[in-house]
Amino acid sequence: MPQLVLIRHGQSQWNLENRFTGWWDVDLTDKGVAEARAAGELMREKGVDHDLCFTSVQTRAIRTLNLALGAMDRLWLPVEKNWQLNERHYGGLTGLNKQETRDKHGDEQVHIWRRSFDTPPPPMDDGSQYDLSADRRYAGVTVPKSESLKDTIERVLPYWEARIVPALREGKRVLISAHGNSLRALVKHLSQIPDDEITSLEIPTGQPIVYDLAEDLRANERYYLSER
Amino acid sequence: MPQLVLIRHGQSQWNLENRFTGWWDVDLTDKGVAEARAAGELMREKGVDHDLCFTSVQTRAIRTLNLALGAMDRLWLPVEKNWQLNERHYGGLTGLNKQETRDKHGDEQVHIWRRSFDTPPPPMDDGSQYDLSADRRYAGVTVPKSESLKDTIERVLPYWEARIVPALREGKRVLISAHGNSLRALVKHLSQIPDDEITSLEIPTGQPIVYDLAEDLRANERYYLSER
Repeated sequence: MPQLVLIRHGQSQWNLENRFTGWWDVDLTDKGVAEARAAGELMREKGVDHDLCFTSVQTRAIRTLNLALGAMDRLWLPVEKNWQLNERHYGGLTGLNKQETRDKHGDEQVHIWRRSFDTPPPPMDDGSQYDLSADRRYAGVTVPKSESLKDTIERVLPYWEARIVPALREGKRVLISAHGNSLRALVKHLSQIPDDEITSLEIPTGQPIVYDLAEDLRANERYYLSER
Repeated sequence: MPQLVLIRHGQSQWNLENRFTGWWDVDLTDKGVAEARAAGELMREKGVDHDLCFTSVQTRAIRTLNLALGAMDRLWLPVEKNWQLNERHYGGLTGLNKQETRDKHGDEQVHIWRRSFDTPPPPMDDGSQYDLSADRRYAGVTVPKSESLKDTIERVLPYWEARIVPALREGKRVLISAHGNSLRALVKHLSQIPDDEITSLEIPTGQPIVYDLAEDLRANERYYLSER
């Protein structure tokens, strides 16, 4: 039976400061480091093992993976990193904290951006200090100016189909360390969650989410490993 | 001009205890962690950057790589891990400290095992606590019973030719985090060091060694980055 485990990175500095992060490359806090190690210890203790790992090209997800694998004595597992598993790109909101955003744009508009399925935030300004379009890590990639959750899903799922589905079909046990919205994309797909519900589904940091999948990769069951 | 950087893992617990380690999976000491971070900081400061990384399937080399890449803000680089970059397999000496080995086998024999190019140490006993032949990490690999340096070279170089040479020919800047003897194999090959000299060439822990290579991948120059 194919097995998939999803883990959202531990707390980052900007999670702590309540700032929109998106593609900006913010590191874990000490709490985030501890969450990542605890996730690895939990998987080890529960005997949830893996054959192959996937992550984004963002430090907070990669470090979460490395810390969890270290705690499991599994640093030797193969890891594939790809920008298509990155967090949703928050465009012109990047770097703002939630209060600054409300002051600037109004409560109602902020609520729409956060909870709408297909409304992207305002585009990032050219020359913004948070513009990553010239970052070498994204050479050959068209860095978005901003993304709705729908936009995020539309670049996560092709990667899922191309790289992760074939591994699961080969019988590999897969671990994915990623972000709130790239994981929402996968949970929506696997658990067939409607557009208007997925935006409010919270994915906690550092909590391994286990999918037991049928042979056709439909979800038999999804649960938090900490609850078993 | 193709560029290659080699780094031997930071101090491990068994380096500290002066025990033969080989394929046994011993972690870094705090000093080893600091050495790995310092190597990354040095590369960052000197502007020595990379496109692609290779390492063994042993924790001490992988953690050294991860810590160095973290210090360089390069955790997003692709990393390929392969057993062919593992340390020399010390067979029946695994786990013994240097004094125990001399007491058991005599000074002269120990000198031969350490310094001979093609004499392997005694084979590991079946059922040894250090036997890794059933470790999942080596599924599909014939785990050696022991290796001479010559044996080590004979499994490092095919991997070098198959995976690393093509990357260098494509113009990729390559970083390899590995072990004293798997790096001796590469240095012997690149710097054309005779059999009877390579066994006494010391490769210090945590010191980036830079190779400037000609287009045909012959070595123009080899130096410690700390000396530039």
